Amino acid sequence: MERITAKYYIETPYNVEESAAVLAGEQSSGTFVSVPGETEELKKRFAAKVESTELLETADKPAIPGAVSSTGKYNRALIEVSWSIENFGYNIPALISTLQGNLYEIKQFTGLKLMDFQIPESYKNHFKGPCFGVNGSRKLTGVENRPLIGTIIKPSVGMTPQQTASLVSTLAEAGIDFVKDDELMASTTNSKFEDRVDAVMKVVNDYADKTGKKIMYAFNISEEIDTMLKRYEYVLKKGGTCAMISINSVGFSGVKKICDQGELAIHAHRNGWGMLNRHPLLGIEFPAYQKLWRLAGVDQLHVNGIQNKFWESDDSVVRSIESCLKPFLNEKTILPVVSSGQWGGQAPETYRRTHTTDLLYMAGGGIMAHPLGPAGGVVALKQAWEAAVDGLSVKEAGKKYKEFGKSIEKFSK
Amino acid sequence: MERITAKYYIETPYNVEESAAVLAGEQSSGTFVSVPGETEELKKRFAAKVESTELLETADKPAIPGAVSSTGKYNRALIEVSWSIENFGYNIPALISTLQGNLYEIKQFTGLKLMDFQIPESYKNHFKGPCFGVNGSRKLTGVENRPLIGTIIKPSVGMTPQQTASLVSTLAEAGIDFVKDDELMASTTNSKFEDRVDAVMKVVNDYADKTGKKIMYAFNISEEIDTMLKRYEYVLKKGGTCAMISINSVGFSGVKKICDQGELAIHAHRNGWGMLNRHPLLGIEFPAYQKLWRLAGVDQLHVNGIQNKFWESDDSVVRSIESCLKPFLNEKTILPVVSSGQWGGQAPETYRRTHTTDLLYMAGGGIMAHPLGPAGGVVALKQAWEAAVDGLSVKEAGKKYKEFGKSIEKFSK
Repeated sequence: MERITAKYYIETPYNVEESAAVLAGEQSSGTFVSVPGETEELKKRFAAKVESTELLETADKPAIPGAVSSTGKYNRALIEVSWSIENFGYNIPALISTLQGNLYEIKQFTGLKLMDFQIPESYKNHFKGPCFGVNGSRKLTGVENRPLIGTIIKPSVGMTPQQTASLVSTLAEAGIDFVKDDELMASTTNSKFEDRVDAVMKVVNDYADKTGKKIMYAFNISEEIDTMLKRYEYVLKKGGTCAMISINSVGFSGVKKICDQGELAIHAHRNGWGMLNRHPLLGIEFPAYQKLWRLAGVDQLHVNGIQNKFWESDDSVVRSIESCLKPFLNEKTILPVVSSGQWGGQAPETYRRTHTTDLLYMAGGGIMAHPLGPAGGVVALKQAWEAAVDGLSVKEAGKKYKEFGKSIEKFSK
Repeated sequence: MERITAKYYIETPYNVEESAAVLAGEQSSGTFVSVPGETEELKKRFAAKVESTELLETADKPAIPGAVSSTGKYNRALIEVSWSIENFGYNIPALISTLQGNLYEIKQFTGLKLMDFQIPESYKNHFKGPCFGVNGSRKLTGVENRPLIGTIIKPSVGMTPQQTASLVSTLAEAGIDFVKDDELMASTTNSKFEDRVDAVMKVVNDYADKTGKKIMYAFNISEEIDTMLKRYEYVLKKGGTCAMISINSVGFSGVKKICDQGELAIHAHRNGWGMLNRHPLLGIEFPAYQKLWRLAGVDQLHVNGIQNKFWESDDSVVRSIESCLKPFLNEKTILPVVSSGQWGGQAPETYRRTHTTDLLYMAGGGIMAHPLGPAGGVVALKQAWEAAVDGLSVKEAGKKYKEFGKSIEKFSK
C-alpha cells in the first residue's frame, strides 16, 4: 500500500526515538492509555511508522515551551514518519490534520517543524495541480525569456475604481505585464469589486485591442465561497485572466474550489505566512507549504524576494523559488512571485542564485516612485533583468542603462 | 464610521510607538517609499491608527528572529491598532488578512501575537453566529444542569463501520451523550464515510426510538467543499444532528459555507492550534481565534482541558472556556469542548476555576479503559461532575462514588 512520508525538524528533552514514537502514535491509532480494539493487525495496517531519525545539535534552552529537561539538554533531530494512504485517501484536509494537527501540542516536543513531505504516485490521478502555472502564465501575458514584470496597486486601499484604472493605464503605457490588487483590498466602500473590474478591464481590454498585449490583472476575490465564485465569474465575463486569493485567510477547501473552476490563473498570496514559518522550530517550511497549495491547484505563489524588507533570509527565498520550479503532480511548475522592497537592484543576485527567469518579479514603490515615473520604473526592471542574465553587476548595469541608473540613485542604500 | 480594534503583544528592538506605526502603515495605505496618491485625505479615511501603546517588560534576547538590537534590549508592549470597516466591510478573509497578514513578517518586530479584537455593532446584522451553540447542543441531546459527557472513537483510525457502530452501541448503553470521530478519521478504505454513517445512525436511531435519548454523533466531514456538502446532507438525511470539521485544515471560507447550512450543530476541531499559538510571542491567542470561528458560525470548539496531556497551561484553558461563554454576535455562546487526557479527576478543578457546567466534557481512554468498562467510565464522569459542583475534592468524590473511585485507582498518577 502506498505511503505518505513527512520530514520534521524536532527538539525534545527526551530520547529522540521515543519522542518520534509518541508523535506516530498520537497521529494514528494511539491514545494516552491502551484501549480495546487497538489490535496488532490494526496497528500494522494503520499505525504511523517512524522511518528514520537523524540526530543533530543539542540546545541548552527549549525553543518553545514544553517539557523541561532533567539534564538541561534539548536534543534536535530530523525525523521521518510515514502513513498508509489508507488512513486518508485523497482527502487533503484530512492529510493536513495528519501532518500538521495535534502533534504541535505534544509536550514531549520543545520544537517541531514540518519540513517537507512526499506524496505517492497515485496522487497524480486525483489532483490535476495548477491549470496554468509557469507556461500558462507566460502564454496569457505573452512574455518569454524574461521574468514577468509586475506591480501592486498602491496605496493599497483607498483609491477609487477610476483612480485604479487610470494607474493601470499609466502602467500599461509603461509596458507592465502584470498588476495586482493589494491583499488588503477586496471590496471597499469607495471601490466596489465589480466597479473596479469594470474600470480596470476597460483599460486592459482597450490596450489589448490596440497593441495585442493583454495585461494580467489579479483581482482580489478573497471572500466567502459564493461571493468568490460570483466574483470569479465576473472577472471572467469581463475578459480578465487572473484572480488573487489570500490563501491562508480563505483556507484549503475554499481555494481548491476556486482553482477547480480552471478558467483563470490563480495568484496565491500567502499573507500570514510569517505566523506559520518565522520561528525556526515551529510551524512549516516552504517546501511542504507549496506542495499543499499545488494540490489545491494555485498557479502563482508568493516567495518574498532577495534582500526583502521583511525578516526572511535570502537562503530561504532561494529555496522557495527552487521549490516552486520543481515538478510536482502534473509536472507543471508554478510561478514564484518575487516581491517585498524589490526595485531591480536585487535582479543580479536573484539570477546568480537561482539561474532562472521563470519569475513574476513585482515592484511596488520601485516602479511607482521611479524618478522618471512608472514608465522609467518598468524599463529599469527589464534592464536590470537583462543585465542580470548577462552577468553584469548592479553597478555595471547602472552604467549601461540610463533608467536603471536612476533606480540606483533613488533606491540604493 | 465604525472601526475594528485589535490588540497585539509585541516585541521590538526599536521604539515601540514607531514600530506600531510601521505595522499600521504596512497593514493599510503604506509601502516602503511614499507613492503618488497617498494623499492626506486618503490616509485620514483608510489608514490604520495606533490607538494605544502600553510598555511592558524588556528582554535580553529576541523572541523570534528579526532585527538586532543595538542596545541589547528588546522592548515588549501591548499595542492597539484600529481600522475603519470601510477597508473591508463584512469580508472576513479580508479582515483576517488585515489582522493576521503580512505584519508577522515585519522585521521591526521580534515578537508579535494577536491577543484579541473588537467588532463593531453592525457585524450583528451580517453574521448570524452559531445556529446551535450551548443551548442548541443541550436541546439536541436533552442534557441539562451538567456537562455533556462525550468520547472519541478510539483507536482513531482502523475500525470498520460495524466495529464503530458496535462501540457506539456499548457507549449508548453506558449512557453517553456525545461521540465523535477522531480528526484523523474521515473516510478510509475500511470505513467509508457513508457506510459509517449508516452503521452508526442505525444504532443511534434505534436507541433513540427505544429510550427517547438521541446521542449526538459528530461525523468528521472535513474535505473539499462539494464533498463536505454531500456528506453533510447524508448525515442529515440519516437523522444525524452534528458534523465535525477540522477548522484549520478546511479554512475559514469552507467552514463558513458549511455552518451557513444551519441544520446540523458544527463541532469545530482546532487541530493544528499548537502551530498558531504555542510560542508566547508569535501567532494568535484564543480570545481572538474563537471570535473568528464564531463569525464563521461554529457551535462547539475545542479548548483542551485542565491538566491535559499536551503543553497548554491550565490558565490558558480556563481563559479559553471563559471566551467561549462570553456573548458575541447574536449573544449565543458556543460550547467549549474539554478534552485531552481527561478522566474525571480534573472535574473538581475545572469547576472550581470556571464555575460552569456548560461544557462538552470528553474522555477517550478515560471511558474506554475504565476498569468496569465503558459504562463504568461514563458513570464515573457523571459522578465526578456531580461531586465537582458539590464542592468535593477528588479524594472525597472517590470515597463517595464507587465507579469514580475505580477511575482514581486506574488513572491517577
